[in-house]
Amino acid sequence: MVRLDGTAEGLVRRGGEEYTAAEEPLELRIGGQPFTVTMRTPGDDFDLVAGHLVSEGVLATPHDVVRMKFCSADNGCSSTAYVDGDASLAFADGDPLNIVDVTLAPDIALPEDRLRRSSYVTSACGVCGKTSIDAVHATMRWPVTEDDAKVSAQTLFTLPDRMRDAQKVFAKTGGLHAAALFTPEGELLCLREDVGRHNAVDKVLGWALRTDRLPLRGHVLAVSGRASFELVQKALAAGIPMLTAVSAPSSLAVTLAADSGLTLVGFLRGRTANVYCGAERIV
Amino acid sequence: MVRLDGTAEGLVRRGGEEYTAAEEPLELRIGGQPFTVTMRTPGDDFDLVAGHLVSEGVLATPHDVVRMKFCSADNGCSSTAYVDGDASLAFADGDPLNIVDVTLAPDIALPEDRLRRSSYVTSACGVCGKTSIDAVHATMRWPVTEDDAKVSAQTLFTLPDRMRDAQKVFAKTGGLHAAALFTPEGELLCLREDVGRHNAVDKVLGWALRTDRLPLRGHVLAVSGRASFELVQKALAAGIPMLTAVSAPSSLAVTLAADSGLTLVGFLRGRTANVYCGAERIV
Repeated sequence: MVRLDGTAEGLVRRGGEEYTAAEEPLELRIGGQPFTVTMRTPGDDFDLVAGHLVSEGVLATPHDVVRMKFCSADNGCSSTAYVDGDASLAFADGDPLNIVDVTLAPDIALPEDRLRRSSYVTSACGVCGKTSIDAVHATMRWPVTEDDAKVSAQTLFTLPDRMRDAQKVFAKTGGLHAAALFTPEGELLCLREDVGRHNAVDKVLGWALRTDRLPLRGHVLAVSGRASFELVQKALAAGIPMLTAVSAPSSLAVTLAADSGLTLVGFLRGRTANVYCGAERIV
Repeated sequence: MVRLDGTAEGLVRRGGEEYTAAEEPLELRIGGQPFTVTMRTPGDDFDLVAGHLVSEGVLATPHDVVRMKFCSADNGCSSTAYVDGDASLAFADGDPLNIVDVTLAPDIALPEDRLRRSSYVTSACGVCGKTSIDAVHATMRWPVTEDDAKVSAQTLFTLPDRMRDAQKVFAKTGGLHAAALFTPEGELLCLREDVGRHNAVDKVLGWALRTDRLPLRGHVLAVSGRASFELVQKALAAGIPMLTAVSAPSSLAVTLAADSGLTLVGFLRGRTANVYCGAERIV
């Protein structure tokens, strides 16, 4: 790497080393069949897979999964069921651990139309924000409208610093999104990082599933970046009543949150924040 | 919206208005068949669709497309071919313009396996960074290794400010990613914004296709955020030899850029930058 520095007189070129955030593809298979591929930061891969399937409405309890295992590239699944994803592991032939195969419990149905990503928007019902929101509500297991969690504004203001303190990789690379789960008192329960913002949230939801904590009533999900429709959808899929973001929400994120009774906080920086809806939970 | 302000003594709650960045689903159909759905900021939708198909390796010239048109939700396509996407337009029955149907030229093949997104990673060849890179190279139309474009470091340092000056929406909402195309002299040719970082780049590539500028030899693509594997892949798909990002690249973005002869610049802020590979193009 060459570091350019034009701050002094003339241009200085220096050699340098820079850590970069790891990114590798992960293929998710269900019962041996390809389901989806995502570019992710290796590590916590079983959490990522479990959380992705929570977001998709497939999983609700740890018992919905019989087994998760890494597969080698020749389609022969490893007989070893690793307890957790670890980027330093590889198969004996040098293949990296980039394929996870999930065996669902027999009573867990995988609707045909879930085999397409973004399947909550079907061409049959048209495509618009309203139908996207209706589709989320139709598959929601744990509505949050009745969740009477209260979080103090003082606690809210501490969340970004608590996240940053817990972020190990960001300080080195500057290249990772983070998602964290907090109690209403501001206790950090789980923090996950990833090059993909959706993946960071899925890793948190997967941790919650695997530790049998769903639904996450009364909890706060905090993200390091922006709040999109899909991040609000993921919070709702896990029964979380409050989502905070360091940056801006999108229009459809606000609409979905307001229609669903979720508290949405944006621009949570220093000791200020914007509460877009559900302000009654902040005391 | 409620604005919380804890900077003074006690907590102040104020009402407020805040613009949010628009987000709506867009369904892309090819020849009437659903191809993909993305959450995007409405506007420049034909650019988005064209650019997505450039990124996928389907389109190379404006003549590869016979027609693009918006469809209404009842699957009956409108007979009107709009010249460009415009978020303020809607069908007479109030349906928003969220479905675009593309008619490809008869000689443009749409390989079966492109019907799955992320299809460049197939389960047959295993899943790892190396095979992902090989797959990008196999479909690349315009290798950039021989591109002898030169950009001065002084010009490079001006790009983020030129982008920000041209960003109309960000200043209001704080919620949009931007991508911009520059000449080697730093002239801004095209800037697009979107809630999705991939979409902002696709809108730029689609503009270039529709104005018959592909391949973009000698050009610089600048993005407001991070540089992922997929953003490097998109630059390569359009024959662009240089990608600059305000934030960090991922490990696989650096590997793909280095293996492909693309100049990758990260942390382009103020008058400093990191050049991860291809530094010979910066003079």
